[in-house]
Amino acid sequence: MNDTNVLDVQGLMTELGRQARIAARLLARAPTEQKNSALAAAADALRQGRDAIAQANAVDMAAAAAKGLSGAMLDRLLLNEQRVEAMAKGLEEIARLPDPVGREMARWQRPNGLDIARVRVPLGVIGIIYESRPNVTADAGALCLKAGNAAILRGGSESFYSSQAILACLQRGLSAAGLPPDCIQMVPTADRAAVGIMLRMTEFIDVIVPRGGRSLIERVIAESRIPLFQHLEGVCHTYVDGAADLEMARRVVMNAKMRRTGICGATETLLVDRRVSASHLPVLVRDLLDAGCEVRGDEATRAVDARVHPVTEEDWRTEYLDAIISVKVVDGVKAAIEHIERYGSHHTEAIVTADEAAAAEFLAAVDSAIVLHNASTQFADGGEFGMGAEIGISTGKLHARGPVGVEQLTSFKYVVRGSGQVRS
Amino acid sequence: MNDTNVLDVQGLMTELGRQARIAARLLARAPTEQKNSALAAAADALRQGRDAIAQANAVDMAAAAAKGLSGAMLDRLLLNEQRVEAMAKGLEEIARLPDPVGREMARWQRPNGLDIARVRVPLGVIGIIYESRPNVTADAGALCLKAGNAAILRGGSESFYSSQAILACLQRGLSAAGLPPDCIQMVPTADRAAVGIMLRMTEFIDVIVPRGGRSLIERVIAESRIPLFQHLEGVCHTYVDGAADLEMARRVVMNAKMRRTGICGATETLLVDRRVSASHLPVLVRDLLDAGCEVRGDEATRAVDARVHPVTEEDWRTEYLDAIISVKVVDGVKAAIEHIERYGSHHTEAIVTADEAAAAEFLAAVDSAIVLHNASTQFADGGEFGMGAEIGISTGKLHARGPVGVEQLTSFKYVVRGSGQVRS
Repeated sequence: MNDTNVLDVQGLMTELGRQARIAARLLARAPTEQKNSALAAAADALRQGRDAIAQANAVDMAAAAAKGLSGAMLDRLLLNEQRVEAMAKGLEEIARLPDPVGREMARWQRPNGLDIARVRVPLGVIGIIYESRPNVTADAGALCLKAGNAAILRGGSESFYSSQAILACLQRGLSAAGLPPDCIQMVPTADRAAVGIMLRMTEFIDVIVPRGGRSLIERVIAESRIPLFQHLEGVCHTYVDGAADLEMARRVVMNAKMRRTGICGATETLLVDRRVSASHLPVLVRDLLDAGCEVRGDEATRAVDARVHPVTEEDWRTEYLDAIISVKVVDGVKAAIEHIERYGSHHTEAIVTADEAAAAEFLAAVDSAIVLHNASTQFADGGEFGMGAEIGISTGKLHARGPVGVEQLTSFKYVVRGSGQVRS
Repeated sequence: MNDTNVLDVQGLMTELGRQARIAARLLARAPTEQKNSALAAAADALRQGRDAIAQANAVDMAAAAAKGLSGAMLDRLLLNEQRVEAMAKGLEEIARLPDPVGREMARWQRPNGLDIARVRVPLGVIGIIYESRPNVTADAGALCLKAGNAAILRGGSESFYSSQAILACLQRGLSAAGLPPDCIQMVPTADRAAVGIMLRMTEFIDVIVPRGGRSLIERVIAESRIPLFQHLEGVCHTYVDGAADLEMARRVVMNAKMRRTGICGATETLLVDRRVSASHLPVLVRDLLDAGCEVRGDEATRAVDARVHPVTEEDWRTEYLDAIISVKVVDGVKAAIEHIERYGSHHTEAIVTADEAAAAEFLAAVDSAIVLHNASTQFADGGEFGMGAEIGISTGKLHARGPVGVEQLTSFKYVVRGSGQVRS
């Protein structure tokens, strides 16, 4: 790449940012009905644009196949009729969510008569950097729109044409509702320099949401000058306490690990109280092995089944995102908490127990975005929380923690109403 | 400074960070009474430590005088009996504030029986970087403590000994209440490298709060890898609308500019609707001039009084923090909003008007942390908002916007209670 090119990309990005700011100002005050009608029109445009999307997707798929991408990668990239319909339905679902903007979060009077309200407002401009799944274009763009934010999307180069085709539908929806198409923009180049520039556009972007694998997130964390909503990884734990009901523990552990192994809320480490290492541990381990899960255990765990592999220190820190689990026998709830504090990623952890005191201790002491008692870690999801669609899960402690839905994509301001008060 | 020195400071800071994390974990679960009794004991220790504080302050004052610091700087540094008492009272006030930690912010049930609560938890470790006022040591340390956070303080080198003496009192209070003194620590060196290291301690510090002049804040923004609660400046506006009552406008404008000119909520620019440029503008300008305020105005403003200086483009962006005001005649509320959007700092802006529609337009469109109708911008203060003491005002949109009090120094987590639920 030569310098001229960098300058071009810089100019391009600045223009994108400027347009986003202008759009965001308009969008911040757009009525709920207008935003919802844009979402509905975009859903229609997606359905009507099926063929164009399929053609664009075919170009991406051919290029990806030529590059020798894996079957799993190709599957992520694929947009069939069913997936386009799912995107359209997703937009309609977001339209049905309550609009957070303008809502009074609190309101109180001061002794001097001042009336103070805390009112939700949009954040402004959200940048989303993602990888191969083109459907993120629709989901993320729509969530930002609903919360009154302009979006600047940067998809993976593999899905470039598919994402552009989806974007065209979203923008058709915006135009149909009388909103500027620049409310949702996409970086119009696959040039990797664009990401670096985007991460430094503090003047134009208020928050960056990176969605993708570890290397993407790590790059974004290292380079971004803009605040992030992100989680690097979900090394989630399920702790089976000495007072756990065995049948409940079996059900919860199996679901937490095996329902879907590739999501961030999947349990990666099982901690079992030594008090039930004879009664519960063998059953739990056998269940997992029989379900096709590789088990890597400490000595106590290996003692219960010959199929258990030895665990390494590295395993405790590993997010497998696969049918693999690390298992450790611990001395009660305090030891479980210590293990999680040392190796966890502050994402989601669960305790299974009938002992209310142990549960209370666990829920209070574990410093994670989500802590559960007698439930599967796979519930770590905005939809399952009743928050509607989410743009991701945040393990940061500032602003948004846990599922990031429309409400978390807003800020607030203080609106103070007086009758001529001055400060003494 | 040689390399060995840098290494020493690095080691020192890492140790500080490690201790803060350990203290924060304990403090996160400390009962309200224990935190309050630490604050009460610290207040007593300040009163009893008056003499030691005075001696330490005398060392700082002598060094500052020898360095030729200005009278204003020396005054900021001075700790007399009255100021020590004010600090002690401040701690007692913070003890009386409600404890945000553990409070349920929301709680709901899901159709599958899951019970989800959003519960306030401390942020963790807060780093505070400040300049010459040694009393920040007590205020900031106490606010962090009340919200269950460990604090790492980095005061100005001029107040080094004074701050250390205050810190000793705070730590005495912590010990008396059975809390680790490391809940509030201070960087034990005036070495400037310590700040750079602190700003990169992402592993140990969750938020940095810079308090000081523009050059300090700019350095922190440029270097920090840790999220900030900060405002760079408060270029605050008061807009006197065509429908403003003249007497109310006079009272509000005078207070907004002149009550205290050195605070961030002081009005720096007065915008006056052209419709009242004949009736209101001359009176407002004369009031300000007569009160000793320098007025820099556009042509229309200069026409009303010969004492008005010409205004430059630069003035519109300037936070004077002094008895100087820039004045512009604008064509109604929309033009006022445009001016604020272009030149403002998203801090605090007020409209004076009897026209409810104009007020509603202003309050909705102005994108600032605080917007006021018929009240002085000098109300931009956590105490005036009824939030108790504040650690500062944030102009950022994430997490904390406006006054940053104990509540804003917390995060939350989701506590999910089930009866064996698994995700389908």
